[in-house]
Amino acid sequence: MARDVVRSVKGTRDFYPEEMGARIWLYEKMRQVSESFGYSEFEGPMLETYELYIAKSSQEIVEKQSFVFEDRGGDKLTLRPELTPTLARMVAARQPQLTFPLRWWSFGPFWRYERPQKGRTREFFQWNIDLLGDDSPEADAELIAIAASFLKEVGLTSGEVRILVNNRELMDKHLATFDIAPEMRGEVFNLIDRRDKMSEESWQEYAAELGLTPKQTGQVIDLIGNQELWRQSDSLVKMFAALEAYGISDYVSFAPQIIRGLVYYTGTVFEAWDTSGEYRAIFGGGRYDNLVGDVGGDPVGGVGFAVGDLIITLILQQYGRLPEFGKTPSAVFFTLFDQSLLQESLKLANSLRQAGIKVTSQLTPSKLGKQFKYADRIGAKFAIVVGPDEAANNTVTIKNLATGEQTELPQGELVNNLKALGG
Amino acid sequence: MARDVVRSVKGTRDFYPEEMGARIWLYEKMRQVSESFGYSEFEGPMLETYELYIAKSSQEIVEKQSFVFEDRGGDKLTLRPELTPTLARMVAARQPQLTFPLRWWSFGPFWRYERPQKGRTREFFQWNIDLLGDDSPEADAELIAIAASFLKEVGLTSGEVRILVNNRELMDKHLATFDIAPEMRGEVFNLIDRRDKMSEESWQEYAAELGLTPKQTGQVIDLIGNQELWRQSDSLVKMFAALEAYGISDYVSFAPQIIRGLVYYTGTVFEAWDTSGEYRAIFGGGRYDNLVGDVGGDPVGGVGFAVGDLIITLILQQYGRLPEFGKTPSAVFFTLFDQSLLQESLKLANSLRQAGIKVTSQLTPSKLGKQFKYADRIGAKFAIVVGPDEAANNTVTIKNLATGEQTELPQGELVNNLKALGG
Repeated sequence: MARDVVRSVKGTRDFYPEEMGARIWLYEKMRQVSESFGYSEFEGPMLETYELYIAKSSQEIVEKQSFVFEDRGGDKLTLRPELTPTLARMVAARQPQLTFPLRWWSFGPFWRYERPQKGRTREFFQWNIDLLGDDSPEADAELIAIAASFLKEVGLTSGEVRILVNNRELMDKHLATFDIAPEMRGEVFNLIDRRDKMSEESWQEYAAELGLTPKQTGQVIDLIGNQELWRQSDSLVKMFAALEAYGISDYVSFAPQIIRGLVYYTGTVFEAWDTSGEYRAIFGGGRYDNLVGDVGGDPVGGVGFAVGDLIITLILQQYGRLPEFGKTPSAVFFTLFDQSLLQESLKLANSLRQAGIKVTSQLTPSKLGKQFKYADRIGAKFAIVVGPDEAANNTVTIKNLATGEQTELPQGELVNNLKALGG
Repeated sequence: MARDVVRSVKGTRDFYPEEMGARIWLYEKMRQVSESFGYSEFEGPMLETYELYIAKSSQEIVEKQSFVFEDRGGDKLTLRPELTPTLARMVAARQPQLTFPLRWWSFGPFWRYERPQKGRTREFFQWNIDLLGDDSPEADAELIAIAASFLKEVGLTSGEVRILVNNRELMDKHLATFDIAPEMRGEVFNLIDRRDKMSEESWQEYAAELGLTPKQTGQVIDLIGNQELWRQSDSLVKMFAALEAYGISDYVSFAPQIIRGLVYYTGTVFEAWDTSGEYRAIFGGGRYDNLVGDVGGDPVGGVGFAVGDLIITLILQQYGRLPEFGKTPSAVFFTLFDQSLLQESLKLANSLRQAGIKVTSQLTPSKLGKQFKYADRIGAKFAIVVGPDEAANNTVTIKNLATGEQTELPQGELVNNLKALGG
């Protein structure tokens, strides 16, 4: 029978306990890696002014892909499409009080009005991590090491995923030698960014439309095919040297076609991809120099990246690396034999909780067999029974729900027994 | 000098690491208490349809206090002002697959367009916890026990905070004996809810406006002054009996003036207040019977409550019960003596991370004194130095930043030493 239930909003997700478990698991991995490198958790508002994004370089995102609306007071608001502008605003607002270099990370919801598809929703979650106030190639290396450590931590090998690194200054310098005018280079960056995403024919047409001569187009193709180009960048040479120290170099390659869509990057840029080529980029990031200044702060550069929750989850599912979630957090289910034993059962269950054991309590009497079945369905491992005999003898019976094995023991030994069983 | 920084949206908060630490600390307390009673974490979308709230009983909230807007496709959306309608929708959508009784909790952001003031913002966070499919008074007691356990867990005593409990059915039955018509009782509930929030004169005027006779008004006043009224409710009698088992009865009192603003409650209702009377309600909750049915599911009752993050944080601050936050999560700061020792320093720092120690690394050389000062300012406790002597001897020096004490030890002993120091 079809159910006529009020619908949810297109492009949003309901996180039932199984999906929520996966999200929290990811969040905990992000926390673990972030904190192991000394990054502090912060969070910005989810509502920001429209001006924040216009003031900066995410104009296309806010104009075409964001939820923008007026509130009841007539203010034009935006559901944040990304965190970096908020980070820049928060740093600018307290810049004199903050200690630099500053290491911050965050995990929260974001919104983009795009066509929902596999791996893309309108409401999604993102890990952001940034280092501000250290312009060295070693700072770029630290962020890439964090990214690689995360991939390793969630169980993805360097054969399955790869972080591709480039440097916009290096590219810009070469585009200049091809006589491509400075004002055209942003467009040529877009062209390079599209190289792997379009057919050869469409890409050549795009190049011609931009006004590149066939010679220039050929030079660009040669440039982004040159795997040794990084040797010409002092910054990349130092960055790759520093990366060696982290033992994750196998996750990282130079890739001259990586540019990133966002226009605010000024130096190193990087993206993580699955090597199967089945998905779009898992995440991306890079160095930005002007963001804090753009929102009214003193100029301070930063480097960071953002990982959405969707693609990484799909890849982890594909490789079977996500644990199973959705069961009750409590391994222990406390039955209720009959109404006369309510007080005693609730009291004993609560003493277990006070000893740090998670317990679900049956609150209304029903047949024990039914209670065992329920306990098993919600994922409990042990059921505790206090019947009239147990109550009279100050004992309890523990039933192992998987094996059916039952053990009677003194109430005083229950806590230690359950802890030994992993309760 | 005034800084001209792009502003944030009125009624939103920036969570710098110190504020974020407090929020995460609360979230962890909520998780701990929720899980100890066997509740599973879930989460709904932050965007819901306007219809979800109109279909239900939060009409006033969505019409007057919510952020409602049209998206680019013309759909009318709402930034969720509360979670219960979403919970009802999610339960209805998968009702045949879910196992009841169902215990779920959640912590996330909500929005209301209200005048920002102390303890009230337009964007706030809320803990929601609900038990569906068990209509017993013992289910009500479990939720109240959870609420009291949380207050206890965050360090508030029963002298500082109190959970006030009432039952709407009980009140409704009495209003009927005063010849107050069924269709008027919702308004009289509002009147009762306002009793402590208005002057006596305004309240009497409000009663008269509703059409209550002076006799009826007197009867209502007597009713909500009757502290023994609960003895007439079989449900409350059983609920208070069950509460005894949890050892938190000192946190709970019967209070016949407690009604709750939301119209969807059908039985037990409760609110937590600080005994100083300085703040508005810390949280509230109650039993609702019709929500899942209202959104298209099969009727199933529930009981739950929601705790906003603002009032509880203010009270915890007032009583000095909030730990301090905002420092780096890493007790260990790894200095960089000079550029020649970069590889070795980064490598050693990373081996500490792999052993589970959180480490912030200096990435560019500067005077050691300056590095120690920075480490101290971000809140690190120990600085590690690898200079030319240490590198030659395979040793490291640990400097205690509080005492200035320095110890040189073999590199192989560093992990165990730092762990012993609590690194």
